[in-house]
Amino acid sequence: MQQQISVITLGIADLARSRRFYVEGFGWKPVFENPEIIFYQMNGLMLGTWSSAALEDDMRRQLGRPGAFALAHNVATQADVQPLLDRLARFGGRVLRPADAPPHGGFRGYVADPDDHAWEIAWNPAWPISPEGYVRFGA
Amino acid sequence: MQQQISVITLGIADLARSRRFYVEGFGWKPVFENPEIIFYQMNGLMLGTWSSAALEDDMRRQLGRPGAFALAHNVATQADVQPLLDRLARFGGRVLRPADAPPHGGFRGYVADPDDHAWEIAWNPAWPISPEGYVRFGA
Repeated sequence: MQQQISVITLGIADLARSRRFYVEGFGWKPVFENPEIIFYQMNGLMLGTWSSAALEDDMRRQLGRPGAFALAHNVATQADVQPLLDRLARFGGRVLRPADAPPHGGFRGYVADPDDHAWEIAWNPAWPISPEGYVRFGA
Repeated sequence: MQQQISVITLGIADLARSRRFYVEGFGWKPVFENPEIIFYQMNGLMLGTWSSAALEDDMRRQLGRPGAFALAHNVATQADVQPLLDRLARFGGRVLRPADAPPHGGFRGYVADPDDHAWEIAWNPAWPISPEGYVRFGA
């Protein structure tokens, strides 16, 4: 398995307040933004800031407190998604959401690690992954 | 500011249980491990799994629930650490721990983003950062 994290998604309450911290505080430039989500191209992975409600709905886990987040490991094909979720469940993970197709395309499911950290396992054909595992935003 | 995340540190309760998920489940190889922490070299950043108690003590924030984590942005010099914490505080962040020197060397502080996600701002001379922002484990 490629040792690769594709996305860090932070759940946020107020996009403008969060944007100020990342864009004016860190000085980072968004690579994509709409009224619900902002993506920043980082060093070989993406940072996403997404409304907590949408993130919690997507990962099928309601936390009811600030601090929600998910890490993503993207795989090469749609057929790789569910087997990896199943495999992780055999080694102490807990499937939060079996794989299905999100409205924006691709294919994904979620599994919690033994300490309840959420991992999205996703096939996203729009975002290329280099042989070294560096992930780039693609439209 | 380099658009770069250096480390994702996940707080964990049981290192062996967590190791099984990452090493046997994902199939990843540790680049460093001791009885308290494991590091995995990822795609241009490090993944750390660290006892929650130690992580919460380090970031000066007791959560008292599973799911603690911290992201890190490493900077080039020790003198860059506190000014970046101060800058982030001016743009909606909340300093959790002013910069000081941890026992293992380097220099670091913590700031929470407006949604309470913890960022460690650190100078770690042992871990080189490439011009593209890719971070590598160094002993």
